[in-house]
Amino acid sequence: MSKLFDIAVIGATGTVGETLVQLLEERAFPLASLHLLAGSASAGQSVPFKGKNLRVRELADFDFAQVQLVFFCAGASVTQAYAAKALGAGCAVIDLSGGLPLEQAPRLVPEANGELLAGLPAPFLLSSPQPLVVALALVLAPLRAALALQRVNVMAALAVSSQGREGIAELARQTTELLNMRPLEPKVFDRQIAFNLLAQVGGLEEGGHALLERQLAEELKQVLALPELRVAATCVQAPVFFGDSLAVSLQAAETVDLALAARLLEAQEGIELVEAGDYPSVVGDAVGQDEVYVGRLRTGLDDPAELNLWIASDNVRKGSALNAVQIGELLIKHYL
Amino acid sequence: MSKLFDIAVIGATGTVGETLVQLLEERAFPLASLHLLAGSASAGQSVPFKGKNLRVRELADFDFAQVQLVFFCAGASVTQAYAAKALGAGCAVIDLSGGLPLEQAPRLVPEANGELLAGLPAPFLLSSPQPLVVALALVLAPLRAALALQRVNVMAALAVSSQGREGIAELARQTTELLNMRPLEPKVFDRQIAFNLLAQVGGLEEGGHALLERQLAEELKQVLALPELRVAATCVQAPVFFGDSLAVSLQAAETVDLALAARLLEAQEGIELVEAGDYPSVVGDAVGQDEVYVGRLRTGLDDPAELNLWIASDNVRKGSALNAVQIGELLIKHYL
Repeated sequence: MSKLFDIAVIGATGTVGETLVQLLEERAFPLASLHLLAGSASAGQSVPFKGKNLRVRELADFDFAQVQLVFFCAGASVTQAYAAKALGAGCAVIDLSGGLPLEQAPRLVPEANGELLAGLPAPFLLSSPQPLVVALALVLAPLRAALALQRVNVMAALAVSSQGREGIAELARQTTELLNMRPLEPKVFDRQIAFNLLAQVGGLEEGGHALLERQLAEELKQVLALPELRVAATCVQAPVFFGDSLAVSLQAAETVDLALAARLLEAQEGIELVEAGDYPSVVGDAVGQDEVYVGRLRTGLDDPAELNLWIASDNVRKGSALNAVQIGELLIKHYL
Repeated sequence: MSKLFDIAVIGATGTVGETLVQLLEERAFPLASLHLLAGSASAGQSVPFKGKNLRVRELADFDFAQVQLVFFCAGASVTQAYAAKALGAGCAVIDLSGGLPLEQAPRLVPEANGELLAGLPAPFLLSSPQPLVVALALVLAPLRAALALQRVNVMAALAVSSQGREGIAELARQTTELLNMRPLEPKVFDRQIAFNLLAQVGGLEEGGHALLERQLAEELKQVLALPELRVAATCVQAPVFFGDSLAVSLQAAETVDLALAARLLEAQEGIELVEAGDYPSVVGDAVGQDEVYVGRLRTGLDDPAELNLWIASDNVRKGSALNAVQIGELLIKHYL
């Protein structure tokens, strides 16, 4: 009989937390016990697991000595407040909030840089990167050597579910109000998101980049182990409920072998390459799937060393919860 | 008294044609007579002009000798079938359909390459480029020299109005059906457009580029008079009724002077540069306006010779009808 683990999920009532709990069930994660935790506002709610409703308890009262592995699915401030406590109790920590620096909590996408784990000391403090980086890393990892990748240009259209349940409710509410000709009052976003595109996600830093865009570049370079890579990123909020869409343009060192690139992508675990002539979209393809969908593979119009492609990925499932569970699976298989 | 002109508008009942007629009124175009024309399916309808309803007549019966200037706002096949007839009758032709080759009908954005007209022979056969190129050319024209522009990477999210009234009706219908939990049957687009992003607009050519993307690159290079410019373009269909959004990344020859770029954009006629920290969107800013809105100006995260920006532009008004009317104004002022 293989080893079983006691596990805690923090932020279990959020979109990502609930999906993560569902994946622990689907993938038969070897659980001895499962502790669902949240802040006082959500504690007392219940989350379905293996046909039962598991009660969510209050994080502040939790004794981390009861578990060996903790998933942090709440906001950055929660991770920052409790990760040290979990580590101190000897737990391995997998953070999904992006709230810890790269040097402290390395970003991991098992298919792309899973081997990084072998060099890390216990207790393990790991981070699942932002959903856009999970998708990008999966696609770029098999190409990086063959292309001698120089530059990545990405325009990412984020689903409102990147803002959790509130984002989803806001798009539904605004759309209904507009279709019923009622006046619209934006709440979650800074203006109308229904039938619109917002050129900024989250706060800006000096220089005009969004924090999200800078983190995307830094996380991607860490996961791909390409510190010299040049990344240009624009993250946009789209009126889409679930699934991120990415238009990507890559610059290689030399002429791109398109057939080779397609073969490398086809061989990559976790990727579904859509056949030439078709293209993937979030609705109908990527949402609800474990794979990142790739299509519209083509070399440049004016530059044979350019490779363009399109990515559709489930931001909640593959981009967050599944990648974190996969980090957990890697961890318990080899290192716990 | 200044000269008055007899003018024909073909495709007067479409979204672009109707807007063009409205602009002729708003801008007090010096009209002696206005002839509204359409195919047999739309002939007989009427279009408002100066407080009256002008009857739309059948194109097939029209005698082009009655006019000096013709706007072609219908599909490419209509331009291809009738432009020669109009030219043969001595008319100047302004095409909005993209149906004529660049060599035959040069693309014009008056603020960017209006001076091109002086070198052309009569009768004038001119083309208003696709809406994305009008927006891009306006933004890039003032920057091209200062940046010694090497490469343009653009991801454009097109409004459904780029597919005319049918596209608009389809997004409204699909959205209503989804909100009412009714099954959805896509008609105008190849799949669900509501709450989705489609990575392909129109047909693909060999190599996997959309015709629209190749034309964008070719038209942009012609308007900017930069044949060596490298253009990467991905055009996407967004669930937005009106207004195109463009994420643009530029590569310059040397370090970009951000303050200079901002000054050049501010000085450019036809552009509204949104102040740093804010950003423009199609709903609320660009739609219904004569200006192309620009924001999120910033140099590269990893490359000081990179300039990134965001464009929001009314595809029907500024991108099509207004640019065509401005070509007409330039033409009658100097050459007719």
